[in-house]
Amino acid sequence: MKIIEGKSISHVKGFKAIGLNCGIKKGIKDMCLIYSEAPAVAAATFTTNIVKAAPVLLDMKHLQSKNTQALLINSGNANACTGEEGYSNAVRSAEMVSQCLGLDPKEVLIYSTGVIGVQLPMDQVIEGIKKASGCLVDNGDDFAAEAIMTTDTMKKSLFVELELGGKTVSIAGIAKGSGMIHPNMATMLSFIVTDANISKEMLQKIQKESVEKSYNLISVDGDTSTNDTATLLANGCAGNSLIDSENDDYLKLKEAIDHINVWLAKMIAKDGEGATKLIEVDLQGAKTPEDAKKCAKAVVSSSLVKAAVHGSDANWGRILCAMGYSGGNFDPGKVDVSFVSQKGKIEVFKNGVPIVFSEETALKILSEDTIIIEINLYDGSFSSKAWGCDLSAEYVAINGNYRS
Amino acid sequence: MKIIEGKSISHVKGFKAIGLNCGIKKGIKDMCLIYSEAPAVAAATFTTNIVKAAPVLLDMKHLQSKNTQALLINSGNANACTGEEGYSNAVRSAEMVSQCLGLDPKEVLIYSTGVIGVQLPMDQVIEGIKKASGCLVDNGDDFAAEAIMTTDTMKKSLFVELELGGKTVSIAGIAKGSGMIHPNMATMLSFIVTDANISKEMLQKIQKESVEKSYNLISVDGDTSTNDTATLLANGCAGNSLIDSENDDYLKLKEAIDHINVWLAKMIAKDGEGATKLIEVDLQGAKTPEDAKKCAKAVVSSSLVKAAVHGSDANWGRILCAMGYSGGNFDPGKVDVSFVSQKGKIEVFKNGVPIVFSEETALKILSEDTIIIEINLYDGSFSSKAWGCDLSAEYVAINGNYRS
Repeated sequence: MKIIEGKSISHVKGFKAIGLNCGIKKGIKDMCLIYSEAPAVAAATFTTNIVKAAPVLLDMKHLQSKNTQALLINSGNANACTGEEGYSNAVRSAEMVSQCLGLDPKEVLIYSTGVIGVQLPMDQVIEGIKKASGCLVDNGDDFAAEAIMTTDTMKKSLFVELELGGKTVSIAGIAKGSGMIHPNMATMLSFIVTDANISKEMLQKIQKESVEKSYNLISVDGDTSTNDTATLLANGCAGNSLIDSENDDYLKLKEAIDHINVWLAKMIAKDGEGATKLIEVDLQGAKTPEDAKKCAKAVVSSSLVKAAVHGSDANWGRILCAMGYSGGNFDPGKVDVSFVSQKGKIEVFKNGVPIVFSEETALKILSEDTIIIEINLYDGSFSSKAWGCDLSAEYVAINGNYRS
Repeated sequence: MKIIEGKSISHVKGFKAIGLNCGIKKGIKDMCLIYSEAPAVAAATFTTNIVKAAPVLLDMKHLQSKNTQALLINSGNANACTGEEGYSNAVRSAEMVSQCLGLDPKEVLIYSTGVIGVQLPMDQVIEGIKKASGCLVDNGDDFAAEAIMTTDTMKKSLFVELELGGKTVSIAGIAKGSGMIHPNMATMLSFIVTDANISKEMLQKIQKESVEKSYNLISVDGDTSTNDTATLLANGCAGNSLIDSENDDYLKLKEAIDHINVWLAKMIAKDGEGATKLIEVDLQGAKTPEDAKKCAKAVVSSSLVKAAVHGSDANWGRILCAMGYSGGNFDPGKVDVSFVSQKGKIEVFKNGVPIVFSEETALKILSEDTIIIEINLYDGSFSSKAWGCDLSAEYVAINGNYRS
């Protein structure tokens, strides 16, 4: 597996894409269209929030289609809590894309992210779709990763190549997500397209497992949104033999897709609203996989842990406390906790009791912009990672006035 | 039931109390001793965090005793994650109190709140206990409510009187709690003493139910602490006939205790770290009591809702979103949401769709310091309240540097 700089969606064989401004936002890109010239299979996981945005409800139907060839994404407006009018707007958008590209509406998936409860400006959306369909980019700067951003401060895009049975397979992933990011996927959208030849069933299996260990292990603020979706699209243009069972090619492709999903998830966590640091929890020694996940997620989701990391404070007490209320089982009398960064490692809690450590060294280690919290429960052999960000005053400033 | 200003713990018949400085904190009160001269029955609810502080573990044993006559509280040090040494320190503290007051150690309950993972300075604690035992105040300024404070900005104390069978019964309640306050009681301590004559069994029943609808419905930052305890102590000195069943006197006493617990809970929510506003969710029309509670708690716990209220932003989308991921069941297509304050009421969402409202009026209403979010699910007849506070930049400043 090779990571390639400077390539994105439109460099994957058979895919074209474009990001542009259609007028939802003022002057900045707010619409992205991704198109596969060849028939393709899609897999997706959706938000668990029972308040689901109109495009999510529509996509849950359209995903039943065997063929999926276009993804339309708008940023700036979530089309959530918009009632029947919002749902018909999603339907109309899919119809417009299908007309422009000669597809069935069922072969189009629709995504929205942004403010909740405002109807989409459909005149602009319709014009935008016509324009986007007419200027799709092949093998060039497609601006897809930029057009899907909301409060994101950097675009998130990764491209990898791998060999499957002598054929070169490409995979491109883009994502957005900043506020409202929590385990179980909150206002985060991710799109991975590949020219691999794989069955819809196998693709769905990869995506479901991959989302579990990437997006579902990140947290920015504990809020799960109405719109979150992670989509995977494969058009077979690489010409590898069809992957329709869990064979070696399946495992190789899965590894590459896992890598992209985890990388995008970490980028989302790092780019949390107002965040200045990425926090990674690396938890070992849990009795069950569930205990590992629950404890790791609780640490990375705790406002108190996040605020402490922001202040470069080695406050391991809040880590123990968060694991304690996580619902995960462990024996507090056996736990080890260390902080790790580029500047080194410092043990702060061992065998269930605090150990004396140099505050000066701790401060040096915690002042870095990526902080790893290593935890060992010495209770079994299961492990979990989880990612989040620090909690800054900036987060409050951004979210106190988002609608204005 | 009559609320009386200016009275506290030591004004309840048979109770003495004192708050003083023993040297855990620099120059400010950090120890409180509450003593019943007469035999008394105690009831308590403890944190559900599996990392329980030493005093919590000790109190869970001591609460088995039929008689409880003294409560010792220290602030500034939580005696949590302190291993065997921490536990023996809690045991020694209880022994010292029992010696000074002529009790059995089992008749003493111990409470600690403050920094996690640091051993108590036992020389100061022992001297403090001796001093406190010697200067207990009867019917006067006992400083109990002040001595238990940590990051609290105001003391929380309420005194009520009621008649039970022709006898005047007094009840005094004090509480502390600021950061780490979440449903299921986080770094919050509350103490209610009464001269009512009631069985231990009935007292425990009152306390358990009362905590469910007060402290377990507040949230400051979602972290449940290692030390939280709500205690109720009754010494029978009022001379009313023993309450040993759910008779009329039981219901009257319960109503008064509920009132105090809810009042203290709201004061704790209002005094959340860095908080500038109290948020009350008043949710109606849920299909089950659990749906009501889950939805109300999720709204008041959402960082995004809290940040929006801080910025006086009528962001009802985040309210819908929080209910959506709460685990509570409802039909998003039927919901009503309004914001209410002293300045009036504004409807923002009706029958599952946003309604046009005046942003100017909304801003005026949301700029007040107590904001009520009224929600009706139109799905059944159950309701729940929940309380929390806004999320301010100040919260982050306090928690980025708590240990220093």
